[in-house]
Amino acid sequence: MARRIIECVPNFSEGRRAETVAGIVDAIAAVPQVAVLGKESDIDHHRSVVTFAGTPEAVEEAAFRAVAEAAKRIDLRRHEGVHPRLGAADVVPFVPVVNSSIEECAEVAHRLGERVWSELGIPVYFYEAAARREDRRRLENVRRGGFEKISQWVLTDPEKRPDVGGPMLHPSAGGVIIGARKFLLAFNINLATADVEIAKAIAVKIRASSGGLPHVKAMGVMLASRGLAQVTMNLTDFEATPLHVVYAAVEREAAARGVTIVGSEIIGLMPAKALAMAAAHALRTENFDERQILESRLLGNLID
Amino acid sequence: MARRIIECVPNFSEGRRAETVAGIVDAIAAVPQVAVLGKESDIDHHRSVVTFAGTPEAVEEAAFRAVAEAAKRIDLRRHEGVHPRLGAADVVPFVPVVNSSIEECAEVAHRLGERVWSELGIPVYFYEAAARREDRRRLENVRRGGFEKISQWVLTDPEKRPDVGGPMLHPSAGGVIIGARKFLLAFNINLATADVEIAKAIAVKIRASSGGLPHVKAMGVMLASRGLAQVTMNLTDFEATPLHVVYAAVEREAAARGVTIVGSEIIGLMPAKALAMAAAHALRTENFDERQILESRLLGNLID
Repeated sequence: MARRIIECVPNFSEGRRAETVAGIVDAIAAVPQVAVLGKESDIDHHRSVVTFAGTPEAVEEAAFRAVAEAAKRIDLRRHEGVHPRLGAADVVPFVPVVNSSIEECAEVAHRLGERVWSELGIPVYFYEAAARREDRRRLENVRRGGFEKISQWVLTDPEKRPDVGGPMLHPSAGGVIIGARKFLLAFNINLATADVEIAKAIAVKIRASSGGLPHVKAMGVMLASRGLAQVTMNLTDFEATPLHVVYAAVEREAAARGVTIVGSEIIGLMPAKALAMAAAHALRTENFDERQILESRLLGNLID
Repeated sequence: MARRIIECVPNFSEGRRAETVAGIVDAIAAVPQVAVLGKESDIDHHRSVVTFAGTPEAVEEAAFRAVAEAAKRIDLRRHEGVHPRLGAADVVPFVPVVNSSIEECAEVAHRLGERVWSELGIPVYFYEAAARREDRRRLENVRRGGFEKISQWVLTDPEKRPDVGGPMLHPSAGGVIIGARKFLLAFNINLATADVEIAKAIAVKIRASSGGLPHVKAMGVMLASRGLAQVTMNLTDFEATPLHVVYAAVEREAAARGVTIVGSEIIGLMPAKALAMAAAHALRTENFDERQILESRLLGNLID
């Protein structure tokens, strides 16, 4: 039988005390059939993100234990950071990886949400593909106001109430925003110019929000250490708008401004299919099928 | 602990009776921790090839059972085919895939060889990275003469004797040629010409044997169904000579003859790293590391 694998990339409101993050990671790693693939903490934002993957059942269990551990260890009343947040475990997205779909991930999100409320007493909001209300699809909409304001709003505004549980937020752990989304690719392109305005102008031209490429978020920033301007991007659907299409668009817009590309950076993990699509384009393959990727086949076939 | 995965791609001297091949495949698939990834039979060559992968221990066990099953079911005295062959299980190469090395695969080959002789009484020759004699590195050298002639030669010529067991070959199952090699990529490039001489001339220019690209075997052939000439290639070390280097060389040689590329074909399975290298070149990534490939990380990390 084909094995299914999903990923979970939860964010926690703790980026300074290493033992707190280690406790959460240990709780995740203790679940059989789960592999922890990465963890990063940001001191300024006072947040951490953990990446793990495995069978849907195991990932759901590990996510539950992580939310419970975060609630036990983190008190939002004593938490400050420049990043908006609603909960100790703040955002918990599930992502399909192998033989899985976004619909399955939304189901995992919903089951986890019910359990987080019934066993931990922490109310839950659903976002993106798991959203139960159209106005909660976007994470920013759900989280706007943060823990302090939403704690007050839920008392009087039915529109602000959680999807599961509540209406009051948990006094120290707040609420958890659980969702399902596609794999998010972080892709940056460095330009042979120190003029950040050029990177900003290119970002405006190519990003979805201003009518550019679908599923592309982009900003122009300055890489001070290298004296280069960079177009920094998130691709929220790399199958619909592949890497090589984004690269070609930036190259074209840069050329129109008399600038060349120095190189690009892929940040963090990336599905083989995203690379395969770029390779297939470069090599002009006539027949390439992602089932030809050895590792994908092995992941989907190997015995548990 | 990191999980290791190797692949095995054995060839059997049976391509006509489906139940014989099915029996061998069943014997392989019965081993836990092994995934059968493909099987192909050729009626003219009267041979079959099976592709499977898993942990080194499991793959070694499955290879042993496959050799035993082939010996039980195939009698070389009643086998004819256009392809040279020495044994019922003819060639058994092991290939490193995840967290494994060619040296580890050579050790697996040697252990299997000892066991095939001691338990099945079939003598063994080692080739490529598992060769114990320099003149047996190349498979063609080991197999030259085939079952009928080598069965006679071993009686009188010590130089022809097996590396393990013998000197006489097994009366019906012959001998098994066991080895370790790198992943073999099959890559074809189609040209916008019906002139096969151009494909042949390009093949001569780019192949290793005539001083072209290292680790590239190439021939020019005609695709009758499409009226196109094709450069058909095997890449025996895609890390040393990557896909995009081969593509660029063929494109350059074609252009010198006034011909363009129509497209390319990747045949069968392909490691994600081979695609990642082509993608990284096309996208000019500055920092890409194969450990960023999600599926590779998962394969190496996921719990058994």
